Amino acid sequence: MNATATTSGCLYGVGLGPGDPELVTVKAAKILKTVPIVAYFAKKGANGRARAIFGHWVSGSSQQLPLLYPVTTELHFRDPAYTAQLRCFYSKSADSIAAHLLAGQDVALVCEGDPFFYGSFIHLFVRLRTRFKIEIIPGVTGMSGCWSAAKTPIAWGDDVLNVLPGTLSHADLVRFVGASGAAVIIKIGANLAKIRAAVGEAGRMQAALYVEHGTSDAQTIMPLDETPDGHAPYFSSILIPGQGRNA
Amino acid sequence: MNATATTSGCLYGVGLGPGDPELVTVKAAKILKTVPIVAYFAKKGANGRARAIFGHWVSGSSQQLPLLYPVTTELHFRDPAYTAQLRCFYSKSADSIAAHLLAGQDVALVCEGDPFFYGSFIHLFVRLRTRFKIEIIPGVTGMSGCWSAAKTPIAWGDDVLNVLPGTLSHADLVRFVGASGAAVIIKIGANLAKIRAAVGEAGRMQAALYVEHGTSDAQTIMPLDETPDGHAPYFSSILIPGQGRNA
Repeated sequence: MNATATTSGCLYGVGLGPGDPELVTVKAAKILKTVPIVAYFAKKGANGRARAIFGHWVSGSSQQLPLLYPVTTELHFRDPAYTAQLRCFYSKSADSIAAHLLAGQDVALVCEGDPFFYGSFIHLFVRLRTRFKIEIIPGVTGMSGCWSAAKTPIAWGDDVLNVLPGTLSHADLVRFVGASGAAVIIKIGANLAKIRAAVGEAGRMQAALYVEHGTSDAQTIMPLDETPDGHAPYFSSILIPGQGRNA
Repeated sequence: MNATATTSGCLYGVGLGPGDPELVTVKAAKILKTVPIVAYFAKKGANGRARAIFGHWVSGSSQQLPLLYPVTTELHFRDPAYTAQLRCFYSKSADSIAAHLLAGQDVALVCEGDPFFYGSFIHLFVRLRTRFKIEIIPGVTGMSGCWSAAKTPIAWGDDVLNVLPGTLSHADLVRFVGASGAAVIIKIGANLAKIRAAVGEAGRMQAALYVEHGTSDAQTIMPLDETPDGHAPYFSSILIPGQGRNA
């Protein structure tokens, strides 16, 4: 142990919950009120939803550290150039957080939902975990926010629940949705038309609900087969509820 | 609308999170501090974990309404007598909550984790939803608490996450675990030996972690293949993390 190591700051991976600022945990709110540096992922031009949530809680004297995703819209995510750009972005982001930690400052890296449930936070966690103290503050997931807002119990009794990224192929989506007692499809984005077709092919359209920004002011809930064409916000879910046992 | 209906109380389904009282949401804490009646499920002889969490937040003047599960240990859950006893219990519980709501009192029915994620709350929700105003306050799930406490990212990138009740048959467990990128097995209880055998048969033992009471004072984390024989607490999880994309 050297002096630097013993005085390094702590990295908090803070789940911000599904949208409503009051759905952060008491623990997360406390950390946000006192931590000197709040880091967050953002896209150029997009007014991050994370910011709308943590802005409610952070102290005016804290420093905000935006981690701006590279613009990769012209690249397919299976393109090696996309992967390379993202790796570079995550490494640079880890470095800039490490600099604060080495200076003895605690940093909260916030993420919508839960940090370890499909969160970008994971990419920084794997890069920093051997060098720094890291604490994980779990959060209410975006999907919990969606099924609560829609007043739709998602799984009970012996239901198997499948969580499916909308980035899966059409064939995989059909297969997994068809085999699921209950399913939630996340990461909708530009995949809405593909997902809708797959849910129909799997014979589950009648049960499928589309929920956008559940629990926030921008909340929208509708049957999946009534959704308009186009790009859905990243923070939306498609819910196919289970039937439970002893119903 | 008659006078009774318009002055009925509101039922709050309040998620209590995974164990640490500070992991309830700000919204849940506010409701618990002000609501006149707090109802909770409990087992005879067991000092409910729910109670340890909400006890932290409720006002001294609130009335507590325990809903005591019938003793059914001698019955298998596929036995119709078990189902009948539980149905009767849920109906009586719904009636006792309805009586308070009809008297104009708000009631918080609390549940560990998230109310709509395998929560007993669902059984009362389906019995009361057409008659009363019900609000759902989502919570951090027990499994989120477990993977956060174990510092184990559960799913990222294109991972499919399967949530599997430990009450499934051995054959189903082998099949689902084998087909999963990432899996969480919940409802361990008396099923631990069966689950361990199934995870081994599916070839996933090396990655499997057992977490008990994650985030609470009683937290225990160990590799699944080192777990002692016997009954695991209901609020434990087995985690089989995914590998992600762009790792």
